[in-house]
Amino acid sequence: MRWIRFEQQKAVRFGQLRGNEITEVDGAPWDAPKPTGKRYPLAGVRLLAPVVPPTFYAAGLNYTQHLKHYASLGGANIPTKPDIGYRAVNALIGHEEPIVIPKNAGPKVHYEAELVAVIGKKAKRLSHEDALSCVFGYTIGNDVSERDWQKVDRTLWRAKNTDTWKPMGPWIETDFDLAAARTIVRVNGKQTIEFLTRDMLFDVPTYISAMSQYVTLYPGDVIWMGTEGVSPDLKPGDVCEIEITGLGTLRNPLRAEA
Amino acid sequence: MRWIRFEQQKAVRFGQLRGNEITEVDGAPWDAPKPTGKRYPLAGVRLLAPVVPPTFYAAGLNYTQHLKHYASLGGANIPTKPDIGYRAVNALIGHEEPIVIPKNAGPKVHYEAELVAVIGKKAKRLSHEDALSCVFGYTIGNDVSERDWQKVDRTLWRAKNTDTWKPMGPWIETDFDLAAARTIVRVNGKQTIEFLTRDMLFDVPTYISAMSQYVTLYPGDVIWMGTEGVSPDLKPGDVCEIEITGLGTLRNPLRAEA
Repeated sequence: MRWIRFEQQKAVRFGQLRGNEITEVDGAPWDAPKPTGKRYPLAGVRLLAPVVPPTFYAAGLNYTQHLKHYASLGGANIPTKPDIGYRAVNALIGHEEPIVIPKNAGPKVHYEAELVAVIGKKAKRLSHEDALSCVFGYTIGNDVSERDWQKVDRTLWRAKNTDTWKPMGPWIETDFDLAAARTIVRVNGKQTIEFLTRDMLFDVPTYISAMSQYVTLYPGDVIWMGTEGVSPDLKPGDVCEIEITGLGTLRNPLRAEA
Repeated sequence: MRWIRFEQQKAVRFGQLRGNEITEVDGAPWDAPKPTGKRYPLAGVRLLAPVVPPTFYAAGLNYTQHLKHYASLGGANIPTKPDIGYRAVNALIGHEEPIVIPKNAGPKVHYEAELVAVIGKKAKRLSHEDALSCVFGYTIGNDVSERDWQKVDRTLWRAKNTDTWKPMGPWIETDFDLAAARTIVRVNGKQTIEFLTRDMLFDVPTYISAMSQYVTLYPGDVIWMGTEGVSPDLKPGDVCEIEITGLGTLRNPLRAEA
């Protein structure tokens, strides 16, 4: 089942997506929402990030080649345990919305293609075995990053949370086979990387179990699971597509700040 | 004017506080809320954190003695510019609610007494001169921290965002003279520090102006402004009070995890 969040005549709604038809619902997907009786064609609405999370978690360095690259630059230690990080909701945009590059950004604006786990149930102190019981579904995230700011700033605030730098979507898929999935990135239609989505240093249940020993997870929270490889430098006019097989494709153009 | 957020018969509401009487309103304080006609005595309700922010910003090292202490331990560089950090809403509690210390926490559980600026208007690219135009009011925060986790973890996730470790309140005050304010902390009734609240490395307008060049601030966002000095080690049974003159006192007992 695919769940979307969309804007239609200034109203923000959730809906189920079957083929190209949206069945609008009242309430959040994980909250037993009721159909409103309204249906729309997918082409007639604006897709939004599929959720605005109460807390926006991000795993950071979680795939071998990506973390080896940043460790080799002296910029990161190789994680020995699942210490989760944070991103911010001001930066969220949906499928097809533009990633806007500020005038004073350096040349190293990079994509990071990430699997996103969406929490559907309040959860605390889950075992590794039970950890996935709180996951409602999965979506795709692009953890857009500016490497010069990442190096010189004391935190990741503008390097990763500049407005529009967190594309998420296009929808939440509840039936997803992570073991079989591959992540594929294309820039201007040309593939730049393909990797097994499951090849994480610490997997989804390991993160959730560790996190939930200290923090309560809430419905709508998202956990971005990190990325593999190294992005080429992106520039205004480029189009970045992230496909996770079985989930869909998140596509966003880049443009310069007006 | 004082604004509170409270629970009464399972419902969560905002209200104006005059003396000990609450005038309940419908809507958020910064959103021109309408009085509902209901009034309650302050003693009859449970105070909650006065807002659950869309984004929870925190300034980190922003007072001289505090940052010198952590720099001397090799754990922090002295900030050269206002790089904002993040905290998480799972950890929020209100005035008088207990700070719960997990069983495996080390001995160095510390308070950090902080001024909190509450945003009331959507804001982007504010000048230093106009920066305070987006501030609705101020409250008090206790950025409870576990120093061993802070040292060994790759992020601040459990060191600062363990459930119950972000007391905030007791209310939002819209009439506050920051220039005259002093921050005073008492543990079990005994004063441990007093400092000029305004003695920040980077002040509120400097942070807001810098942040808003890259990120949009939204109504309800909070910015915790950092702390001075070094806390004694806190233990279950202690009571921590943070007073900011002109704002009020945020009081929370500490207890061990059951």
